[in-house]
Amino acid sequence: MISKEIHLKSRPTGLPTAANFALVKREIGEPGAGEILIQNLYLSVDPYMRGRMALAWPLDEVMIGGALGQVIKSNNPQFQVGDHVTHGLGWREYALSNGEGVNHIDPGLAPLSAYLGVMGMPGLTAYGGLLVTGEYKPGETVFVSAASGAVGSLVGQIAKIHGSTVIGSAGSDDKVEMLKTSLGFDHAFNYKTANPLAELRKAAPQGIDIYFENVGGPQLEAALTHLRPYGRIPICGMISTYNDGATQTPGPRNLTETIYKHITLKGFVVSAFVDQQAQFLTDMSRWIASGEVKYSETIFDGIDNAVTAFEGLFQGANNGKMLVKLAND
Amino acid sequence: MISKEIHLKSRPTGLPTAANFALVKREIGEPGAGEILIQNLYLSVDPYMRGRMALAWPLDEVMIGGALGQVIKSNNPQFQVGDHVTHGLGWREYALSNGEGVNHIDPGLAPLSAYLGVMGMPGLTAYGGLLVTGEYKPGETVFVSAASGAVGSLVGQIAKIHGSTVIGSAGSDDKVEMLKTSLGFDHAFNYKTANPLAELRKAAPQGIDIYFENVGGPQLEAALTHLRPYGRIPICGMISTYNDGATQTPGPRNLTETIYKHITLKGFVVSAFVDQQAQFLTDMSRWIASGEVKYSETIFDGIDNAVTAFEGLFQGANNGKMLVKLAND
Repeated sequence: MISKEIHLKSRPTGLPTAANFALVKREIGEPGAGEILIQNLYLSVDPYMRGRMALAWPLDEVMIGGALGQVIKSNNPQFQVGDHVTHGLGWREYALSNGEGVNHIDPGLAPLSAYLGVMGMPGLTAYGGLLVTGEYKPGETVFVSAASGAVGSLVGQIAKIHGSTVIGSAGSDDKVEMLKTSLGFDHAFNYKTANPLAELRKAAPQGIDIYFENVGGPQLEAALTHLRPYGRIPICGMISTYNDGATQTPGPRNLTETIYKHITLKGFVVSAFVDQQAQFLTDMSRWIASGEVKYSETIFDGIDNAVTAFEGLFQGANNGKMLVKLAND
Repeated sequence: MISKEIHLKSRPTGLPTAANFALVKREIGEPGAGEILIQNLYLSVDPYMRGRMALAWPLDEVMIGGALGQVIKSNNPQFQVGDHVTHGLGWREYALSNGEGVNHIDPGLAPLSAYLGVMGMPGLTAYGGLLVTGEYKPGETVFVSAASGAVGSLVGQIAKIHGSTVIGSAGSDDKVEMLKTSLGFDHAFNYKTANPLAELRKAAPQGIDIYFENVGGPQLEAALTHLRPYGRIPICGMISTYNDGATQTPGPRNLTETIYKHITLKGFVVSAFVDQQAQFLTDMSRWIASGEVKYSETIFDGIDNAVTAFEGLFQGANNGKMLVKLAND
């Protein structure tokens, strides 16, 4: 059987381009003893991948990344043909596995694609980043950047459910409107045209308690200035800096704000929240069912478009979670 | 009785100069009901004062700051003539007080001047900043900047007592030598001539666990790069940025290091450690007595030299704690 897959050919130095990747066809054999064969239905397209490409991930091999698929052959008693699974076996149409790192999902709780977004890694990132790393307390005032993205949109909605005033920023007026009307943000602004500090002062004259950091740059400086004593900055990402190349964007000039205000900045990745996974799935599926959490997806068709989808992340082409669909559910 | 005192006349925009201050003579009356009259013996000269001058402290009034004195008249039953006290009544020869914020010290435990340094605010800052904010665990590898200063020299020695590998930076070869020979640091370097990252890699090939931040700038960037997973950066000060004026020094370009390494940066001031005060005095007086903690003082004579002493902080004129002596013990 022929499987198309995306390889990382060279490390991007600025914005990733098609030249950094290759579409490769490979013969996939039959599963051996204890192995399964997975047909992927969706690939996950995520900002964090940019950072890993620059340093950690191997060249001339399949791109590491999240995916959701269905077991189509199984020599492993823990998996039945027809089972739906998520895994980190990368951007490919078909994958062989011994089952390690392959997780069952419950297709009855939410649509399949949601398991790469609101019910998956981005959802748990938002949930744990706000509640655990951010040490969120109900009613606190929360500012989140990249608020229309897969993670940011959930951070804002989870805080709203717990009674917060929520401020979000996004990169277009349409997205700003969506945050206010569809997702119930108290205030939202276009970071490309507005002054972040002026917006924060207008929306939260008493200051903010948490800045959920996805972007970096001037928004981080504004947040440091406007945070209240004992404020927290969970650092999820800094997408504005990912494509800097050799000339890196300077960091915030006002880190001394942390001293008298006892502010904490804390980086994290989703693996920190293994202990919260079960409670997260319970809470999130309930919030989706009740309509308290809404989510958007931007879906590209076919593995041939995976690189275009990835490039789109850095051009604001996505509304919510970015996905590539490979086959029908 | 005439008391000389230092007033803040204008807010420094770069390095503070004599023109920002005035020496004022004022008539001090007799203590009223419940009041005491204190004769100051030592004034405390501290880097944090620079930041407060820029924003918070009132103009044309006595400079706020720590001091140690002796009660010479008392209408307050909690204070006897001859008692030694520390207080925050500022840079003046004599002070009237109702006793609020005036604390007795035990002159039997350590020399008087130590209560403005190793046994006082800088001592508790080092102790709490490392053990509480830094969440120090015995044996961890610690890097401290401004390591020959009042706070930094104690951070390094406290970590050594608990079995750490300790790296320090300072601004002259003499200070570097003192750190290694007199204070027992495992490695030290001159940040003006050495490459901080190269020094850290040489001294601690496996990485560092804590960077105790006193300085900012390139040393912070090097520390972020060389910190191990779950590393911590207690932010005590950033003296390299205090005199920036309008053109602020850019912050670290590599804050994204925090994400995959789950690094925490946390600002603090000494008031966070009220609960540790008693244990601190017990521990520190024992360490001084046993010789496990050594400390240095740089002492200027007379209130007329207080501003010169303060300016000296930013020229590296001090070795350890900077003090102004007003009268004999």
